[in-house]
Amino acid sequence: MTQTNGRDVFCRDDLEKLINPTVIAVVGASATPGGFGKRTMENLSGFTGRVYGVNPRYDTVEGRPCVPTLHDLPEVPDCVIVCVAQHLVLQTLEDAAHIGARGAIVYASGFSETGGHEGIAAQEAIAELAARTGLRVAGPNCVGLINVATGGAMNFMTDSGSIIDGAAGGIAIVSQSGALGYTILQAVQRGVGVSHYLASGNSADVDVCDYIAYLADEPTAKVIICMMEGVKSGKRFLQAARRADAAGKPLIVYKAGNGEKSGLAAMSHTGTLTGSTAAYEAACEHAGAIWVDDLEALTEIASFFAKNPAGPSAPGVGIMSTSGGAGVINADKAEDNDLDLPPLHASTREALTQVVPAFGSIGNPADLTAEVLKDAATFSHCLDAFTADPGLGAVVVPLVFVHESTTGVRAPLLSEAGARTETAIAAVWMNEWLEGPGSRMLDSDPKITLFRSAARCMRTIRLWQDWHARRRSIDSDRPAERISDPRAATTAREILAAAADTGSSAVTEQQAKAVLSAYGIAVPQEAVTTTAEEAAAFADRFGYPVVLKIASPDIQHKTEIGGVRLNLGSAEEVRVAATEILDNTRILEPTARIDGVSVQTMIGAGAEVLLGAQIDPQFGPMITVGSGGIFVELLRDVTTQLTPVTAVTARRAIESLRLHKILTGLRGDPGYDIDALVDAVTRFSEMVDDLADILTEVDVNPLIVGRTGAIAADALVALHHTAAVTV
Amino acid sequence: MTQTNGRDVFCRDDLEKLINPTVIAVVGASATPGGFGKRTMENLSGFTGRVYGVNPRYDTVEGRPCVPTLHDLPEVPDCVIVCVAQHLVLQTLEDAAHIGARGAIVYASGFSETGGHEGIAAQEAIAELAARTGLRVAGPNCVGLINVATGGAMNFMTDSGSIIDGAAGGIAIVSQSGALGYTILQAVQRGVGVSHYLASGNSADVDVCDYIAYLADEPTAKVIICMMEGVKSGKRFLQAARRADAAGKPLIVYKAGNGEKSGLAAMSHTGTLTGSTAAYEAACEHAGAIWVDDLEALTEIASFFAKNPAGPSAPGVGIMSTSGGAGVINADKAEDNDLDLPPLHASTREALTQVVPAFGSIGNPADLTAEVLKDAATFSHCLDAFTADPGLGAVVVPLVFVHESTTGVRAPLLSEAGARTETAIAAVWMNEWLEGPGSRMLDSDPKITLFRSAARCMRTIRLWQDWHARRRSIDSDRPAERISDPRAATTAREILAAAADTGSSAVTEQQAKAVLSAYGIAVPQEAVTTTAEEAAAFADRFGYPVVLKIASPDIQHKTEIGGVRLNLGSAEEVRVAATEILDNTRILEPTARIDGVSVQTMIGAGAEVLLGAQIDPQFGPMITVGSGGIFVELLRDVTTQLTPVTAVTARRAIESLRLHKILTGLRGDPGYDIDALVDAVTRFSEMVDDLADILTEVDVNPLIVGRTGAIAADALVALHHTAAVTV
Repeated sequence: MTQTNGRDVFCRDDLEKLINPTVIAVVGASATPGGFGKRTMENLSGFTGRVYGVNPRYDTVEGRPCVPTLHDLPEVPDCVIVCVAQHLVLQTLEDAAHIGARGAIVYASGFSETGGHEGIAAQEAIAELAARTGLRVAGPNCVGLINVATGGAMNFMTDSGSIIDGAAGGIAIVSQSGALGYTILQAVQRGVGVSHYLASGNSADVDVCDYIAYLADEPTAKVIICMMEGVKSGKRFLQAARRADAAGKPLIVYKAGNGEKSGLAAMSHTGTLTGSTAAYEAACEHAGAIWVDDLEALTEIASFFAKNPAGPSAPGVGIMSTSGGAGVINADKAEDNDLDLPPLHASTREALTQVVPAFGSIGNPADLTAEVLKDAATFSHCLDAFTADPGLGAVVVPLVFVHESTTGVRAPLLSEAGARTETAIAAVWMNEWLEGPGSRMLDSDPKITLFRSAARCMRTIRLWQDWHARRRSIDSDRPAERISDPRAATTAREILAAAADTGSSAVTEQQAKAVLSAYGIAVPQEAVTTTAEEAAAFADRFGYPVVLKIASPDIQHKTEIGGVRLNLGSAEEVRVAATEILDNTRILEPTARIDGVSVQTMIGAGAEVLLGAQIDPQFGPMITVGSGGIFVELLRDVTTQLTPVTAVTARRAIESLRLHKILTGLRGDPGYDIDALVDAVTRFSEMVDDLADILTEVDVNPLIVGRTGAIAADALVALHHTAAVTV
Repeated sequence: MTQTNGRDVFCRDDLEKLINPTVIAVVGASATPGGFGKRTMENLSGFTGRVYGVNPRYDTVEGRPCVPTLHDLPEVPDCVIVCVAQHLVLQTLEDAAHIGARGAIVYASGFSETGGHEGIAAQEAIAELAARTGLRVAGPNCVGLINVATGGAMNFMTDSGSIIDGAAGGIAIVSQSGALGYTILQAVQRGVGVSHYLASGNSADVDVCDYIAYLADEPTAKVIICMMEGVKSGKRFLQAARRADAAGKPLIVYKAGNGEKSGLAAMSHTGTLTGSTAAYEAACEHAGAIWVDDLEALTEIASFFAKNPAGPSAPGVGIMSTSGGAGVINADKAEDNDLDLPPLHASTREALTQVVPAFGSIGNPADLTAEVLKDAATFSHCLDAFTADPGLGAVVVPLVFVHESTTGVRAPLLSEAGARTETAIAAVWMNEWLEGPGSRMLDSDPKITLFRSAARCMRTIRLWQDWHARRRSIDSDRPAERISDPRAATTAREILAAAADTGSSAVTEQQAKAVLSAYGIAVPQEAVTTTAEEAAAFADRFGYPVVLKIASPDIQHKTEIGGVRLNLGSAEEVRVAATEILDNTRILEPTARIDGVSVQTMIGAGAEVLLGAQIDPQFGPMITVGSGGIFVELLRDVTTQLTPVTAVTARRAIESLRLHKILTGLRGDPGYDIDALVDAVTRFSEMVDDLADILTEVDVNPLIVGRTGAIAADALVALHHTAAVTV
């Protein structure tokens, strides 16, 4: 099911005049110290285009011409920065649209963020104006934008014009909160290169999704960081993320406000196990975006992706240390992230042997010793040997001592080595002098990425490997043919319509199982017969193994009199067992009434799996797959996916779970039928996708995955109480 | 069992002249640029005591008097720094000891780190000299020491004398590797205060444990960071850690080389599940030391502990944010660390209401809005309101924008607020300009701790709360009386002597269970009888519930003929069931030979727990407790403890496991008998402690913890193959 909440994302053409203007007009430009009008004009001092002030009190502001009104401008501005009070905003925007401006930035607050009726109405008026005129509006309650390439610091933040001078690089920052985005932007002050800083504020018109879509098509942006507390439209977010993915640009998503995660412990069913954060994560995974939990990791991750767009040329990681301890620490973190540290290639070993003393180690991690630091040529020789190793797609170089004479000398050598190779190089700054000599050069290097944490470095390489691996494999994961019966939806709606007719949103377990069965998911079956031959026929129909039980209203303790036979695997076994059960009972309970034997699907030992479904208000139907039974709370081992999934996605999702270890067989256990689970998950996702308009929740717990087959032992379906179930 | 590997730790008096000398002699002092002799003299330029060069080629070096030999010194040096070549080291040390020096630092390498016979012998000669003369030697292969209070930069590291100028603070750094320790020391270059930097190098004489013990008694050190790859003596490590704990000084341990953790997945039994890293962690927990996994977290954690030695005055944490997003991000991380964010006290709310605008939020996290940043008095008023809140033991203040006009202004206000309160204050620097304005003031503040990660800040507060909670509860955890039978060890040794007599190190399952039984740990029992009365008597002796099974060599399918009865809970039930079983069998299997009924302890449903024991080469006997059965590999949910444990420690260890959730009852389950598990773990630890000289491994998997009771369903004991088991 496609969510249809609102318009599509704006594209690059829609936003080009807003984000990349040639002519800017600042309404409210002024010389008042500390005022937004003055700060904005100051910030634009390095802008490569033309800037006009608009204020009847001045002829010039900050050396730029100033006119009384927008109508007095000598040329049509691309973008109008609105530094006026809240009550003047709407008229200013009308004027801007009228003279032909295509973009506007609104600083003023006092709109929907107040929660008050007036503010909300005022914001709706902006939205209406934007829709009507085509003027693309950033804000209100927005600190503004920066386009680094043009010096377009179109905002009121202190010093933002000066800090971006010479800071051009591949990282684009998109943020709802101007403040949070600015914390990342300030990385430019230690040398990190940025292409854009785009705040959306209240997003009356343009939102973070639009910015992402713009950047997907904008060449100076190599990687996009998106910071948000949520989006207004899941559809637009997915459109934007897919556009970034299609453009080969990593989209790194950080969402503040994930606390509900920890609130899950007390919850007892799937619906609540999957909070909205899980939906965002699932949406990111679905669209190829990278989910990051820690603010302080964003800059390094983005830098590494931006500087190494081609992805790994080989799966191995090499650690080139000049200190044993530093090598070990980095190897620990590589292992934590399941990175492969292969032995060095013979040619690498040969090159290193020429310069590494006997007490060093030419392993991986290598301890080349401080001897190789004694002159520039030797250190560069070692770097080149590592980056030329055909087994290494990334080389990690820990830096330990920080001085002008150590990192200060090594930084340019690293930079030069980076320029000579396609292999990714990460320098790990293992030192608490955070901005010591050499750090600025490495932070601003076009090829080397500087990490201030070995753990984050190795985590980033893992993300980078996975992201590129997913892209390479994407052709095998194209939407496949549905695997469930094309008539399943019709059958399911008939069953659920009958349930809805009772006036309740509750669906019986039998009805729920019938719906699953319509989609080809196995459910337990049962029948009673008086003959061994018919018992075998039922068993043939249900599938093996089956259970036989004496069916009698008078016998409570069936097992004690031999009235129960488990795990019967063939028609012959069923025939023999049925005969024995009937005979035993007649001997031991001669007075009991006997209805016959009951043949039931045997739900044997197996791995307990949970399947759940929710309809997320932003992202639509999604399924949760995870460890079931008591594991639900114990492990919280779940993965959430947008529907429908292909078998390829289902398998990858299952492989991401701890459950997968149980399925493949622990402690010599032969394991369980993963193919059957993949099949059930795929069918389940098709069912949820088909019925998303009437479902609120589906909970299959457990699905028992046996040695062969998987069967839904229990199922719950809840319907939307206002849903009209039409067949 | 106490490990007796080597001498006890040196104490403060032993090391005072080495670490805190008044008179230093530098043998090999020189004017050769870049040489160790010159660098050492340069580093000592700020030393408050007296320095002499020793070198026949100079009369003065770096303005200090220089004499030809140690014998020519005008006074006895406390500490001799040995900057001579490897082959001259031993004679220099002999001379130093001869003239009455009490400490020496040896830079030269070429000793045991080479792995060669000659190097090892040379190092042994130093150890012998130290033991014989009482000269305390740091090194060889050691970069040296720093005593910040006296300017005693007794090392050859570039600039170490100048960087510590004005850097006095409470953090003492102890490190085997001089390089790794120096990476933390360089935090002084961003303003962090340090008391000592003590490298041990090859540790021929003085090792990291001795340094820790020294610092425990040294007032300028408030918190100790210990970085190591391992220690030579677990006994000394425990002595030192306990001494730090007794002195109320947090000991923060970082161990490089933990990679074997990730190698555990493929292991199938307890012995190998607990690698040596687990032993170090267990030793740290035992002695109250704080285990830290990430190098980059050490400085912040140490700073916070050093600046807040009294511990939390209240359990709550307050987040005072001036930005909504920043507050939410910090709250997320607080929740991740199970920190309590209580509602603010009425008096706090009242104080804040005066200054916070209506669109702000006086919750926790609070969003006071940028309005409160407009003048110093308002911001200070808010800080004071938070720190005065009686429910808050720590106040976290996120800092978002970094400028001279923002953080540059707020840093002194924070510092002043800190000086007015006992409440801990953490500032979270949520900005990628890592050393921007204000950061140095906060890094060097005596009270405020600056964190560059919200996650690390909250993690540190959690560690700090736990560390102080443990200290407060320590009196209830004094070594208790043993709970197992005082004769148990004798009985166990008799049983194991019989096993050893067979010439094998293998012990049968029966013998293993008998040993457990001697210590009062329940094991399954079994007996066969032909009468219902005797069956009931056996059941009374074994304890309920029991299982009855028909005992016959001719009957394979006992259940099918009603020959098995489970879960019998009383003598009467046993009598009835025994009669029925014998009767049924005679009817259905009239020709079978019948030995009687077998009465067996019923091992019913229960939580599967693993108990394991290993004898660690460093730390002696230790036990592992964790989730058993298939959970062993799936969860790796284990805790390792030094033996013996008290019931209090056993309970705390169990509570730290995910297993605890199963034991307390998931999904409405009534839960299992935790008291019985605590009892079994305590007894098990006493057994392992008693028998540590002959055991190599014990593995009880699973111990089944039922609704009542806990029983060892399977047990394996392996003896040291050379152990003479004497009774």
